[in-house]
Amino acid sequence: MRDAVVSCALLAAVTSFSYPCQAQNPGSSDADEARIEDVITASHILTNEGILDSFGHVSARSAKNPDHFFMPRAMPPALVSRADIVEVGLDCKPVDPNAPRLNGERYIHCEVYKARSDVQSVIHTHDLAVIPFGLTGISLKPVLAQAGFLPPEVPLFEVREANASEPENKRGMLVLNAILGDALAKKLGTGPVVLMRGHGETVVGRSVREATVRTLYTHIDAQAQSAALALSPKITTLNDAELATNAAENFDADRPWQNYKQRLPAGR
Amino acid sequence: MRDAVVSCALLAAVTSFSYPCQAQNPGSSDADEARIEDVITASHILTNEGILDSFGHVSARSAKNPDHFFMPRAMPPALVSRADIVEVGLDCKPVDPNAPRLNGERYIHCEVYKARSDVQSVIHTHDLAVIPFGLTGISLKPVLAQAGFLPPEVPLFEVREANASEPENKRGMLVLNAILGDALAKKLGTGPVVLMRGHGETVVGRSVREATVRTLYTHIDAQAQSAALALSPKITTLNDAELATNAAENFDADRPWQNYKQRLPAGR
Amino acid sequence: MRDAVVSCALLAAVTSFSYPCQAQNPGSSDADEARIEDVITASHILTNEGILDSFGHVSARSAKNPDHFFMPRAMPPALVSRADIVEVGLDCKPVDPNAPRLNGERYIHCEVYKARSDVQSVIHTHDLAVIPFGLTGISLKPVLAQAGFLPPEVPLFEVREANASEPENKRGMLVLNAILGDALAKKLGTGPVVLMRGHGETVVGRSVREATVRTLYTHIDAQAQSAALALSPKITTLNDAELATNAAENFDADRPWQNYKQRLPAGR
Amino acid sequence: MRDAVVSCALLAAVTSFSYPCQAQNPGSSDADEARIEDVITASHILTNEGILDSFGHVSARSAKNPDHFFMPRAMPPALVSRADIVEVGLDCKPVDPNAPRLNGERYIHCEVYKARSDVQSVIHTHDLAVIPFGLTGISLKPVLAQAGFLPPEVPLFEVREANASEPENKRGMLVLNAILGDALAKKLGTGPVVLMRGHGETVVGRSVREATVRTLYTHIDAQAQSAALALSPKITTLNDAELATNAAENFDADRPWQNYKQRLPAGR
Repeated sequence: MRDAVVSCALLAAVTSFSYPCQAQNPGSSDADEARIEDVITASHILTNEGILDSFGHVSARSAKNPDHFFMPRAMPPALVSRADIVEVGLDCKPVDPNAPRLNGERYIHCEVYKARSDVQSVIHTHDLAVIPFGLTGISLKPVLAQAGFLPPEVPLFEVREANASEPENKRGMLVLNAILGDALAKKLGTGPVVLMRGHGETVVGRSVREATVRTLYTHIDAQAQSAALALSPKITTLNDAELATNAAENFDADRPWQNYKQRLPAGR
Repeated sequence: MRDAVVSCALLAAVTSFSYPCQAQNPGSSDADEARIEDVITASHILTNEGILDSFGHVSARSAKNPDHFFMPRAMPPALVSRADIVEVGLDCKPVDPNAPRLNGERYIHCEVYKARSDVQSVIHTHDLAVIPFGLTGISLKPVLAQAGFLPPEVPLFEVREANASEPENKRGMLVLNAILGDALAKKLGTGPVVLMRGHGETVVGRSVREATVRTLYTHIDAQAQSAALALSPKITTLNDAELATNAAENFDADRPWQNYKQRLPAGR
Repeated sequence: MRDAVVSCALLAAVTSFSYPCQAQNPGSSDADEARIEDVITASHILTNEGILDSFGHVSARSAKNPDHFFMPRAMPPALVSRADIVEVGLDCKPVDPNAPRLNGERYIHCEVYKARSDVQSVIHTHDLAVIPFGLTGISLKPVLAQAGFLPPEVPLFEVREANASEPENKRGMLVLNAILGDALAKKLGTGPVVLMRGHGETVVGRSVREATVRTLYTHIDAQAQSAALALSPKITTLNDAELATNAAENFDADRPWQNYKQRLPAGR
Repeated sequence: MRDAVVSCALLAAVTSFSYPCQAQNPGSSDADEARIEDVITASHILTNEGILDSFGHVSARSAKNPDHFFMPRAMPPALVSRADIVEVGLDCKPVDPNAPRLNGERYIHCEVYKARSDVQSVIHTHDLAVIPFGLTGISLKPVLAQAGFLPPEVPLFEVREANASEPENKRGMLVLNAILGDALAKKLGTGPVVLMRGHGETVVGRSVREATVRTLYTHIDAQAQSAALALSPKITTLNDAELATNAAENFDADRPWQNYKQRLPAGR
């Protein structure tokens, strides 16, 4: 993780763009408190922008203990505050056995953190802007300069395939166990986003802020692609050179974070 | 009704999900006051989310006298308060002959309560998200994990058929008498929702909160299906296994109720 | 005009629905002050609902002098207050020669009041919900129970036809003189609404409240029809029996007026 | 520039419409302060209307020194205040070498000011209403009376063409140097707006207010055209006579400026 911080600062120096290099001391409790504060702010920002609804959740890996992560108890993200944050192990059990009830879908987080050591934050949403892509099988693609972080086609998780090995009496759509969480993590692969048919998406980042801004621009990109497809089936998407260049040059995560944070109603 | 409460608590214990099992003493006045309070809150929530407009109404069956129900007088749902609630018999007449003017469409409520002893709450809306389905005859279907309570195709009430037996001088679209109310209840059948062509929908539940949350997720499901159909005519809907599993597992009505309630402007 | 008031009260008594029968003393200054107050409130309501923009205007015929009407000076409708109301003659000149600058399109109002003695209020908007119908030539039709006041097809004013007799150097789209205003009034005919290609609409009523509520439900009907046409080209519109019955039974203008008024931000 | 001011006042006198003829003393510091104040207000207005996001920028040419212009430092436009305004030369370097970090895309502004001596203000947005036109290659056209300032087809900047002469390792979509800025200015030509594929638009005006109002009505026109195309591929656009007449007659920039300014939340 120290490596990631260094390369991030280096990249920022070279390109004169700012990157989400959190100036935190990895491994300290203070770093964890800063991450928890960002989890809370991200929950409020994504609710305020209509991306998180009554459900959905934001988590951050612990800087002090990378086998733990922090996520809110089962509750609407709009209402999350410090007292609602639970420390969870990668076995998906709360560190404190007396912790309040957790989200049934915490397996999304456990399995992604297990599979991806680079990931410091996981966000699960029911974003209505991306759901039509999963329902139709039409690929979500990067069409905007700010979506250069996306792969040429965002992968789609079909829970029915993962459920094929499940017992007959349990074939729902939620990711309620490690088998389904692992299947989702495999579909995510090394990318930033995986769509979930009839359900939403899971987004990851090297920091809470990066995961949040990726969630916001996945939302905006999906809106732009849908609106363009309503006009014509033939649209121009980012080509390889644009993807490579824009992923590096366009992502000043601090500016959207600052902007969307100031949009929060007073008192949040 | 006592049976319903028991099985609801049992279900919650078994599945570790919470259900809309109102901890009310059936048959008491306190239970009725709690239901009335929920009718008022539901009126405000559904207005705040743009689902109820100047018209539309929420009602609750009386816990003390199941042959009565409570609904607001004829007025915009945004403005409903305790003083506006009228107790109405299943004959669709107010219990108090001096009650204020009632909604002309109260027959929706009377006839559904008569036909469905399991129903504790009825909601009628002009939701613009569902109306396009009725206008085109395209079936509204469950496409989201949270819409597992819907049947594979939501039934559509065509008032013209019900009006065939009406006198020539009265062939409007409103449900202004018991004949039309009964025809609507028959089309609803044993389900949670019936669409009404050119008009809106009627939603029922085992509690005001359940009916409210079903109204909210019918709205969201309709938005998702419309947006998907704008991209492609071929969409994936919930299959039987998903419907069966998700109806049970995905409905924590308390969380959306809590979430949409906190979204109300201060003072409501 | 006294006749209109009587028949309106009679209709309300017979049907048990309330009608926009303003309890005003026709011919008095007080009646005019009440109409002016409604012009101001309607300007704020229609702005608040996104139907009036920086332009657009609401007017009311004078009860005291039916050859005069009241409309705001040239200004954004959101900001209109009592001091901005100008009394205008049917010759489209302000009664007070020192009146502030008037809207260039006041000819819409003059010519409609001249042509339609039943009309007590005229509203001109740039409503984006109706504009697509004018741009494509697809007819706006009543599809909702609350739109029973609309004719089977809302007429469309094509300014190019009216401009055919204009001098070469003046062929714009605005209704800036009596010739164009008269052509618009002819297209309106005896109906409640006329669309204007690439521009908006003009709506009339027997009171400011009725014209306002018609403007609101024309907007909602247009939204519903557009959304339905996005799903399928084949939609069900109100038939003759429904139009006849719903025009009478569904129009309680007071309830939407009350509802949309309470939605205004505090201080309006 | 004195010429422009005179002809503008003359035009207003002749037509009885008001024009964006800023009553400023060209060449004075006071004129520059007035322009800077308008840059700040325009940044807030366009954010409040959802046209500017976390990025995007408004600038004004200096009245005192036409080889300089004023734009905010790199920051979200919602938060811009007087202290954030930087004076920049047409070489795209800040006049004060200690100025805060500037937007990477300031080359849009430098090159347009160089190419167009009539332009006093430049606005760059990521407006989602115009982006679908760039993604599909469908031409944005004037369809509304208020869009008479647009050409029959708004030009589209394809950054790939401009990038053809760029070194292999830098083929992104942002306008980060003078070569790309110059190519964009050439595509803009003598017009008011140029679209940018997958990115947004650049709008210019003879004043900040005119550029702002043009940005607002380009947005509204794009919404109307998109909604019409969703109903039918065949739409009516403004013809030459309408464009010529409406460009002159419909543009009272003061009224929309005043209207959109009063919509800002209190404290802005």
